[in-house]
Amino acid sequence: MTLRIGVIGAGMIGQDHIRRITDVLSGGKVVAVTDSDRSRAEKAAEKPGARVFDDAASLVASDEVDAVLVASWGPAHEEAVLPTLAAGKPVFCEKPLATTQEACLRIIDAEVKAGKRLIQVGFMRRYDAAYRALKATLEEGRIGAPLLFHSVHRNASVPAGLYTSDMAISDTMVHDIDVARWLLDDEVATVRVFAGRRNAVGGDLRDPILAVMQMAAGALVTVEVSVNIGYGYDIRGEISAEQGAASLAESNPVVVKHAGAFSGRVPVDWRERFIEAYDLEIAEWINAASAGGATGPSAWDGYAITAVSDAGIRAARIGEVVEVILVDRPPFYG
Amino acid sequence: MTLRIGVIGAGMIGQDHIRRITDVLSGGKVVAVTDSDRSRAEKAAEKPGARVFDDAASLVASDEVDAVLVASWGPAHEEAVLPTLAAGKPVFCEKPLATTQEACLRIIDAEVKAGKRLIQVGFMRRYDAAYRALKATLEEGRIGAPLLFHSVHRNASVPAGLYTSDMAISDTMVHDIDVARWLLDDEVATVRVFAGRRNAVGGDLRDPILAVMQMAAGALVTVEVSVNIGYGYDIRGEISAEQGAASLAESNPVVVKHAGAFSGRVPVDWRERFIEAYDLEIAEWINAASAGGATGPSAWDGYAITAVSDAGIRAARIGEVVEVILVDRPPFYG
Amino acid sequence: MTLRIGVIGAGMIGQDHIRRITDVLSGGKVVAVTDSDRSRAEKAAEKPGARVFDDAASLVASDEVDAVLVASWGPAHEEAVLPTLAAGKPVFCEKPLATTQEACLRIIDAEVKAGKRLIQVGFMRRYDAAYRALKATLEEGRIGAPLLFHSVHRNASVPAGLYTSDMAISDTMVHDIDVARWLLDDEVATVRVFAGRRNAVGGDLRDPILAVMQMAAGALVTVEVSVNIGYGYDIRGEISAEQGAASLAESNPVVVKHAGAFSGRVPVDWRERFIEAYDLEIAEWINAASAGGATGPSAWDGYAITAVSDAGIRAARIGEVVEVILVDRPPFYG
Amino acid sequence: MTLRIGVIGAGMIGQDHIRRITDVLSGGKVVAVTDSDRSRAEKAAEKPGARVFDDAASLVASDEVDAVLVASWGPAHEEAVLPTLAAGKPVFCEKPLATTQEACLRIIDAEVKAGKRLIQVGFMRRYDAAYRALKATLEEGRIGAPLLFHSVHRNASVPAGLYTSDMAISDTMVHDIDVARWLLDDEVATVRVFAGRRNAVGGDLRDPILAVMQMAAGALVTVEVSVNIGYGYDIRGEISAEQGAASLAESNPVVVKHAGAFSGRVPVDWRERFIEAYDLEIAEWINAASAGGATGPSAWDGYAITAVSDAGIRAARIGEVVEVILVDRPPFYG
Repeated sequence: MTLRIGVIGAGMIGQDHIRRITDVLSGGKVVAVTDSDRSRAEKAAEKPGARVFDDAASLVASDEVDAVLVASWGPAHEEAVLPTLAAGKPVFCEKPLATTQEACLRIIDAEVKAGKRLIQVGFMRRYDAAYRALKATLEEGRIGAPLLFHSVHRNASVPAGLYTSDMAISDTMVHDIDVARWLLDDEVATVRVFAGRRNAVGGDLRDPILAVMQMAAGALVTVEVSVNIGYGYDIRGEISAEQGAASLAESNPVVVKHAGAFSGRVPVDWRERFIEAYDLEIAEWINAASAGGATGPSAWDGYAITAVSDAGIRAARIGEVVEVILVDRPPFYG
Repeated sequence: MTLRIGVIGAGMIGQDHIRRITDVLSGGKVVAVTDSDRSRAEKAAEKPGARVFDDAASLVASDEVDAVLVASWGPAHEEAVLPTLAAGKPVFCEKPLATTQEACLRIIDAEVKAGKRLIQVGFMRRYDAAYRALKATLEEGRIGAPLLFHSVHRNASVPAGLYTSDMAISDTMVHDIDVARWLLDDEVATVRVFAGRRNAVGGDLRDPILAVMQMAAGALVTVEVSVNIGYGYDIRGEISAEQGAASLAESNPVVVKHAGAFSGRVPVDWRERFIEAYDLEIAEWINAASAGGATGPSAWDGYAITAVSDAGIRAARIGEVVEVILVDRPPFYG
Repeated sequence: MTLRIGVIGAGMIGQDHIRRITDVLSGGKVVAVTDSDRSRAEKAAEKPGARVFDDAASLVASDEVDAVLVASWGPAHEEAVLPTLAAGKPVFCEKPLATTQEACLRIIDAEVKAGKRLIQVGFMRRYDAAYRALKATLEEGRIGAPLLFHSVHRNASVPAGLYTSDMAISDTMVHDIDVARWLLDDEVATVRVFAGRRNAVGGDLRDPILAVMQMAAGALVTVEVSVNIGYGYDIRGEISAEQGAASLAESNPVVVKHAGAFSGRVPVDWRERFIEAYDLEIAEWINAASAGGATGPSAWDGYAITAVSDAGIRAARIGEVVEVILVDRPPFYG
Repeated sequence: MTLRIGVIGAGMIGQDHIRRITDVLSGGKVVAVTDSDRSRAEKAAEKPGARVFDDAASLVASDEVDAVLVASWGPAHEEAVLPTLAAGKPVFCEKPLATTQEACLRIIDAEVKAGKRLIQVGFMRRYDAAYRALKATLEEGRIGAPLLFHSVHRNASVPAGLYTSDMAISDTMVHDIDVARWLLDDEVATVRVFAGRRNAVGGDLRDPILAVMQMAAGALVTVEVSVNIGYGYDIRGEISAEQGAASLAESNPVVVKHAGAFSGRVPVDWRERFIEAYDLEIAEWINAASAGGATGPSAWDGYAITAVSDAGIRAARIGEVVEVILVDRPPFYG
């Protein structure tokens, strides 16, 4: 049975998921699209032959829609997710789950009321083969307990004027927060953010930043976020453990030797680096949603990451350590 | 429109393509299956809900079948491909195109008569990201004309008793022959095969072998084929050119440091190493076949590779250089 | 002319330098040895045919000694270095220059009074080919100003009971402090030290630690020090700059593929990793001392590193940021 | 005791060894120099304060000379080596031992008559850390018996007009012949040389060439020699064995990420690549010669390599396989 999917939000990432579901993956079909800009929704609906809805509410309510993919902008996520949960339909929600912890908690309440997991949040790194191999290495136990995790997150550039210093945390570092929690299987307890000499390319932008987080069980995490480093999109990670270390390997298909040097490509952006992860993320969602449920990053993860991000933003502003205070985790989330 | 696919041959590779079309890729649906072992066909037809046909002829002729995928054993390829061409339907044929040059030429004649390309042959390396990057490097021109190509093809093991010395060429080295022709954009002119000290693991098996081929335009190609090397499946390739060199990079997701060493995994077998290439190969075939045609490795490629393989087998037996004699290439194949 | 060298301290590192001067390098000859344990001095003097002196003072004063190498334990450095400076003789002093900032400053005063550089301090990383290439990359300017430096310092093990938590800073991290100052050409302004989950292998030892330093011009430095990581001695470093990054490459001579994995050796200890750096360090010292002067890490470097180390130890104890306060740098040190 | 060394031949390599003995290594002193160009000898003798001799004969005979280093051009080696052997003095002879097999055999006869090894021939790769690690890997036995050895020897460029096609074998490939014999602990039985499409950069030069050798015990060896490849000096080697493989790792100190790529340096020439090997080679010679003997590559090695080189030159000319016929190995050479 093909999963009939309604897509809320037909911007860049929404269009990309529609293309993925239509042209790449099996098992799903985009049957409904809505967007605050109707002409954009119409254009996106063309290839899959989907119906265009006036608003999220009517799309969610439609009998033709089995599951919902939310790719609108962050502040609109809550109003798309809550009715979907109310309708008992599975939902994939792009990151962030919501832009405030309060909104995240309302979503968690709704899902708990629904009595089963219905939400998958779009943290795609968990579907990346290299991160999965890193986690598998830890679980295998050979190198002992993880003590330090070093994460490096570099973008070639961000749009001047549009990208704010806070976004280095709320938009960019959230992925590192996600993998730190997932790899170490623990919550973040405290965050500090250091900003030193700035990259002149970014003008007033606080860039790069260095975050130091401590997990509840004590492991330390460092995160470098550099968003205007020019040379490409570069994601690195290394775990230092009790009796060994494990790191994401450099991945590039070809080494060229020319003019006194060997060289290879660095990915241009996140689309290139994580294309297989995005495919797998949506493929696994289609599978889980077809069975009426959800898998992968949960609403709890979405909430916890937002809480850490909020603490990080505050830590960057006040230059002090900030504790991350989470509500009690509903047993529901295991 | 979904491409309705009939699959001839439901052995290991046939089942894998059925899984791929059904569970992974969009755009195609397996609607028909046939196999000399009917119960095997029935089992394979279950998941996609396909109809089981008594024989290739009736499957090919069915109105419900838009395109045919041939995954039977090599000697049966011709009898599956010819009626498909006669019916004007696109066909994906696993390698080899056919087991004799004569059969390959009959298929070429039939396709030429059909007036357009309908056949894609299953040489999947051309869909591998690393080989594509290697070819792109050559085409970019920076390192000049290619002069030498070193190819290494290693299998962890082959089934004792079932795998013959000739198969190191006809089954294994054919992939290296394919990429040599494709990367260098040239035909193989001569082949020599050297066999030296044998790997004791393989008993009487002539293993490893070293082939030296010369291309029509003069470039030299070396191929190591080792089929019982134990440690894993390892595919390597390097082009030495006029002003540089380019090689397939080692690809592994994670590096672990433990007990005095750094280490990483080598793929277990071809399924692991080329899984994305297989996916892309069939995805591109579905696209081309949906448009009524074909792309990728052609019947001419299938013929030329068989001719080189035949020459290689003879070269290995007589211990001398053997010329590869090809018929004139029909203008049809560009 | 051969430089006639007197060695003060014939322990492990002293013996190693005697071997190096006698068996490996040209230009110098060990003519005098002294040690608090006379029999140890006698044994070390045997191979080079050196004279054994009763104490540092008489060795330094001897007409037969052109230059002095101090390899006694840290607390004894000052009493060996000061008379050598008074005698106007060049001196190589193993790290640390002295164990207190006050002692370092007394040595600086004495050298300033001598009117020219006579002291080289034993921070050998500056003679390592990889660190030199890293510095050359920065100086070349292509990647822009350095903004972050990540340093990783891992030991397979340290002697239980003998190695204290403070020594992770004063004995181990001093090398990272040295290269941070040298690579970034700047002084350390502040230090923090984080200690998280402990490596159970070390019992009560505060291990690993993570230091975050800020340089005077604003660049940030992270240092991981792990001293019981088991797998080997692993030194890593990466500079993240405005338009690029540069890192020490992994260095190992051979890659072996066996049993499902590729692998290579990690050095066992600092002797293996830095053997060429030690040779070059002493070779350059012999050259400079033969000309009556000194090169490389200066007494100022020795003082500044001790000041940062002191601040780091305090930072680790109080869990707060600690400022590094240096006296004015004598113009003498450029 | 310092070894008093007489140097015959003060060209580029002779000067380099004089510098090495004088400025870098311990244990030896250049006391005598001779060269067909007396002013060149005088200049080279200056720094070490050596005496200039009129000819090889008087230098060899001098009481002041304990051991002789022969760095004249190949055709003059025999006339320098034979009197040294007659005088019972240790001799280091740059490669080739001599330019004809007959001359090599006369030298062997003389050494056998002397009753002990006195000659070390200048094949420096055996002193390279990476080649030594490769040999150690084989000896350790984990990967089983070696079956194939792939060697790649690339020069950025050779002097147009001066470098002949034969020299690709007699000057360049001799190093690969040496390491093949040494790594596989076997003699070369047959040689073939293939020349394909030529590198346009070299005009008429037969470049690149591909040699295929078979060892007496059956292992196969491939050698790529490319002498005008432009990008740098690149030496590669991989052993394919029964249950694994081992290869020289790429060695470069720093990886830089900039402008969409990661990159690192390739050595410019053999001096850069093998500088430590040359140092170690001469250091080990000084040790052995000080004890009155010799170590490392022997006169037998020199002879066998010349025999293989001669066979290779003939193989390249006639385009056929050529057998390597060696005289019986004197038991003397073990």
